[in-house]
Amino acid sequence: KVIWTVLVTILGYASSLPVGEDALCTAEELAKYRIIFTGKWSQTAFPKQYPLYRPPAQWSSLLGVTHSSDYSMWKKNEYASNGVRDFAEKGEAWALMKEIEEAGEKIQSVHGIFSAPAISSGTGQTSTELEAHLRHPLVSFVVRIVPSPDWFVGIDSLNLCEGDHWMDEVSVDLFPYDAGTDSGFTFSSPNFATIPQDTVTEITCSSPSHPANSFYYPKLKILPPIAQVTMVKIKKSQLGLSAPFINLPAKSNEIIDTVS
Amino acid sequence: KVIWTVLVTILGYASSLPVGEDALCTAEELAKYRIIFTGKWSQTAFPKQYPLYRPPAQWSSLLGVTHSSDYSMWKKNEYASNGVRDFAEKGEAWALMKEIEEAGEKIQSVHGIFSAPAISSGTGQTSTELEAHLRHPLVSFVVRIVPSPDWFVGIDSLNLCEGDHWMDEVSVDLFPYDAGTDSGFTFSSPNFATIPQDTVTEITCSSPSHPANSFYYPKLKILPPIAQVTMVKIKKSQLGLSAPFINLPAKSNEIIDTVS
Repeated sequence: KVIWTVLVTILGYASSLPVGEDALCTAEELAKYRIIFTGKWSQTAFPKQYPLYRPPAQWSSLLGVTHSSDYSMWKKNEYASNGVRDFAEKGEAWALMKEIEEAGEKIQSVHGIFSAPAISSGTGQTSTELEAHLRHPLVSFVVRIVPSPDWFVGIDSLNLCEGDHWMDEVSVDLFPYDAGTDSGFTFSSPNFATIPQDTVTEITCSSPSHPANSFYYPKLKILPPIAQVTMVKIKKSQLGLSAPFINLPAKSNEIIDTVS
Repeated sequence: KVIWTVLVTILGYASSLPVGEDALCTAEELAKYRIIFTGKWSQTAFPKQYPLYRPPAQWSSLLGVTHSSDYSMWKKNEYASNGVRDFAEKGEAWALMKEIEEAGEKIQSVHGIFSAPAISSGTGQTSTELEAHLRHPLVSFVVRIVPSPDWFVGIDSLNLCEGDHWMDEVSVDLFPYDAGTDSGFTFSSPNFATIPQDTVTEITCSSPSHPANSFYYPKLKILPPIAQVTMVKIKKSQLGLSAPFINLPAKSNEIIDTVS
């Protein structure tokens, strides 16, 4: 039996994964995946201004959606929606859930919403299940970086369908984005609205090019990934609660210790 | 057509809802519900020591499970599991998810896990879907009160099945509980482990009976509900994303304004 395992490690280009507008998914109608989000925001990897208190470095709830190419949750170099702004600035999910719901209602572009619990440290894990549909094979999600002005990590429109089959496993390194709605420069900058609003931009070790920026590391060529996401297809024989959890460690930060 | 609407408003006894150990559910095999959690933790209702900064009053992610009477997530007057302790103290969900997974694996006592995004203020809403099963008709969940030593609200083993039908709507007022693992007295008390661990206890306006306690209001007979949860059965004709969201307000705190 051929096992299709696609390991996508795209450095900094998670938002520009190729998504053919016309690529037709001819796989089975529905596919279930376990999605595992791993925070890699350690003080070792990101020593500059690493937040230790009130609040310490952590991750918000994960909010995601499976959808068609008629919907976009967020996109690099485009303006963030009000829902994405509320989520990136405050971790408030309601407006974004309403936007997704309306897209599902009006143009049938959404299959389902999913969320996973927050992580109370920079280097933990969280997980949930999601369901993709052949007319809604794309996955998008956001996780807010806490504390931060309006910074987040996420995936924009990753296609889980490859022609006539669903991918068995996809893993993507994640890098920080700025939602363009708050002009704070550092993790704990006070609120300072960006007017007019800017577009969503990737934050790199050299951009914004200012020494005060929390991710400015002029000696690095590229930031280490601040998080990683893995989506594993749940086999039909495994349907039910426990199977996809198997092999995960008892503590959410054990994987971190062995991987890095 | 008869619509079964059961509105359960149990003041302070959410954890002791009658759950017949032998009550056999003979309804359809599966039932989907939308669960809507509403925070009612306002400064008006709870003026004492109301947290305004670093962090302000808010709610963690909601983590829940549908299960049989062989599993218990938490129970009043019993000891909290390590998973519930981690969640109540830090909002860290991983250990609790692992406990649930293991209960599902070993004794088939769990049908599914669900989670809803955190709420960034004391008076907002969050929502997700859950699926109950005729052998797993009970719902339990926890939401951490942030900030707090180890305080949470939740439901313990609410039975969604009534004989041969699934309840159409259930609404329960929620009151604060102390997980018994941290001896802090106020919302922002520093960590101070309770050794030996105490059992899960309800926090009332008179207990713990000490003026320093954040919920101690000697002039009140009973605390106002600090939150509310509503579960609404999703009709088969409404299956799909949008239907159960309809009629919810655009902003998560609009319901609060009209209800209270």
